[in-house]
Amino acid sequence: MQITILGGGGFLGRKLAARLAKDGTLGGRPITGLTLFDLAAPKPLPAPFPLRCLGGDVADPAALAAAIPPGTGVVFHLAAVVSAAAEADYDLGMKVNIHGTLAVLQACRALGTKPRVVFTSSVASFGGGQEAVVPDDGRQVPTNSYGAQKAIGELLLQDASRKGFLDAVNIRLPTVMVRPGRPNKAASSFVSAIIREPLLGLSTDCPVPPEFAVWICSPRSTVEWFLHAATMDTAPLGLDRGINPPGRSATVAKLLEALEAVAGRTARDKVGFAFDKEVFDIVVGWPGSFEAKRARRLGFPEQEPLADLVRAFIEDDLEATKADRGL
Amino acid sequence: MQITILGGGGFLGRKLAARLAKDGTLGGRPITGLTLFDLAAPKPLPAPFPLRCLGGDVADPAALAAAIPPGTGVVFHLAAVVSAAAEADYDLGMKVNIHGTLAVLQACRALGTKPRVVFTSSVASFGGGQEAVVPDDGRQVPTNSYGAQKAIGELLLQDASRKGFLDAVNIRLPTVMVRPGRPNKAASSFVSAIIREPLLGLSTDCPVPPEFAVWICSPRSTVEWFLHAATMDTAPLGLDRGINPPGRSATVAKLLEALEAVAGRTARDKVGFAFDKEVFDIVVGWPGSFEAKRARRLGFPEQEPLADLVRAFIEDDLEATKADRGL
Ligand SMILES: NC(=O)c1ccc[n+]([C@@H]2O[C@H](COP(=O)([O-])OP(=O)(O)OC[C@H]3O[C@@H](n4cnc5c(N)ncnc54)[C@H](O)[C@@H]3O)[C@@H](O)[C@H]2O)c1
Ligand SMILES: NC(=O)c1ccc[n+]([C@@H]2O[C@H](COP(=O)([O-])OP(=O)(O)OC[C@H]3O[C@@H](n4cnc5c(N)ncnc54)[C@H](O)[C@@H]3O)[C@@H](O)[C@H]2O)c1
Repeated sequence: MQITILGGGGFLGRKLAARLAKDGTLGGRPITGLTLFDLAAPKPLPAPFPLRCLGGDVADPAALAAAIPPGTGVVFHLAAVVSAAAEADYDLGMKVNIHGTLAVLQACRALGTKPRVVFTSSVASFGGGQEAVVPDDGRQVPTNSYGAQKAIGELLLQDASRKGFLDAVNIRLPTVMVRPGRPNKAASSFVSAIIREPLLGLSTDCPVPPEFAVWICSPRSTVEWFLHAATMDTAPLGLDRGINPPGRSATVAKLLEALEAVAGRTARDKVGFAFDKEVFDIVVGWPGSFEAKRARRLGFPEQEPLADLVRAFIEDDLEATKADRGL
Repeated sequence: MQITILGGGGFLGRKLAARLAKDGTLGGRPITGLTLFDLAAPKPLPAPFPLRCLGGDVADPAALAAAIPPGTGVVFHLAAVVSAAAEADYDLGMKVNIHGTLAVLQACRALGTKPRVVFTSSVASFGGGQEAVVPDDGRQVPTNSYGAQKAIGELLLQDASRKGFLDAVNIRLPTVMVRPGRPNKAASSFVSAIIREPLLGLSTDCPVPPEFAVWICSPRSTVEWFLHAATMDTAPLGLDRGINPPGRSATVAKLLEALEAVAGRTARDKVGFAFDKEVFDIVVGWPGSFEAKRARRLGFPEQEPLADLVRAFIEDDLEATKADRGL
């Protein structure tokens, strides 16, 4: 089985690549090759199968044809311009998130072998805000361009699945935390920052109040979801290729409690509050909670408790993040 | 006020143009110019204001720039590849319905004056089928490429409205009947044919059974909806630019009753039944009914009774259709 990860140099792309390299198999079948594709060629990682690391633009059909060669069985389409960046630069968001996804569709269609496509949509494709508990048939009324572009990407890949060009599973990811590295251009960057920065010994300001609720998941369960989406039987999905996976609803206050439980009061006290209207205006539209019954029925696994999310970051990413940031 | 109708040579485009020419005003303001744009330059019609008839492809930015000149206040975006045609030729549907709508977005955005855009989406963007009574917050799970492309067009124009590039109202039209002229490539073509063909003295076969329910509206109320959408205050819409207008749910049997009431038993007896799987498979996914409370609250007018729809065709279109078809 040959696999491609588009956006393979990013946070989740690298986590997934490491897991595939560790397993050497997907769904019980040996992996015969992995292609990591990103704007800049991703750094190689040790793997028990041939690895290709390619640089290119996902909106460039020629680059994509190289990234998705004949024989590709699974494409993870993670390449994206994220929320605040797509809001700040509409044209860039359209290019990567719309024209990029159109190019992915055509590259997969050109194979003629109906590859599985796992597409990372987002909670940001929903509106409804803090009060919402989004039902499984909840409607996507995006409050930002990134969310609109993700909803459009889903519709494109869903219809292409119906046509038999490919076989898509569109996972609407919660905010994945704890994200290693530096604060990024996602409007939800603070959700990770309020855990990560204190664990690095740094102070940080939370741009939303303590009672603000976010729909979150861990990188570990995200990777589990990716593997499940890549190998599940898609027949029970019918026309509806969108998955609201079982994340967890947590207030900022609860996240800080978990931080304190794992790392003590000193860590907790590194987080201040400084309201940021620009960030707030984007994230306030995102639903605080989802029903996620269908995804559970379809076998998507649950989250660990909050404290485990904090511990997982310490185990998996703290040292690398320190090194990366020269701390 | 300068107005452009994209798809201005089509069924609804011509009806709308004729109405604008008759009124000479829109929302109480004088019309200072009308541009009709279609693949082939539409035939001119008498009008009390300057009229331009342009031929071109809606997916061609240069052609669109000419069709939507500076000063344009309202754009009716009706240009489309319709349901069965978009299903038969995926690439053509994508080109016109997706890339065309993207080009409309960019042409309107380039004006810098936030024109009102009235976009004709469709009942075909919903799934749910015969049994459904779609609530106002019903989710669009399209069962065909045309419907997916319409849902995508809506998302594009909705987000562009939020960004302040334009000011869109996306009307999800029911099947408009009675359509004059010839049977066309819409999967719903039969809905008009079972009334029109008998009134022309011709026999026709209905591809679905008598108990099949369709969500319909008249050309007259469609034009009323267009005028309302072009002039309404869009503030109460908020982010949600999609309108499920107050159509009417009718079975084929009810439509034939109305035909008989107006044109007698002989007309009714011209309709036979011959199941057509290809047509059935597309239309069976479309909902038979909608709630449409929000549209009523927002001032979109109701349908006439069914018999009036039959009479309206006789008054407005029967002679022209006869002439057109050499009958
Ligand atoms: N991390 C989250 O909390 C979260 C939540 C919801 C959805 N998602 C989605 O999951 C996916 C992965 O997220 P992530 O956190 O790893 O993001 P990330 O930003 O770390 O990774 C995305 C990668 O896409 C690459 N990319 C951007 N433009 C590209 C282009 N034109 N061509 C090729 N590659 C390009 C970037 O270089 C980056 O490496 C994204 O699609 C994101 O929208 C993430
Ligand atoms: N009539 C209905 O029952 C109905 C129902 C739901 C939605 N709609 C939508 O309403 C709109 C108008 O419908 P109609 O019944 O008048 O359809 P129509 O086919 O009569 O008119 C559409 C027009 O678009 C033009 N067109 C197609 N491709 C084009 C291109 N590339 N560039 C420029 N013009 C192009 C066609 O030439 C045609 O004149 C369409 O968008 C349709 O999808 C119609």
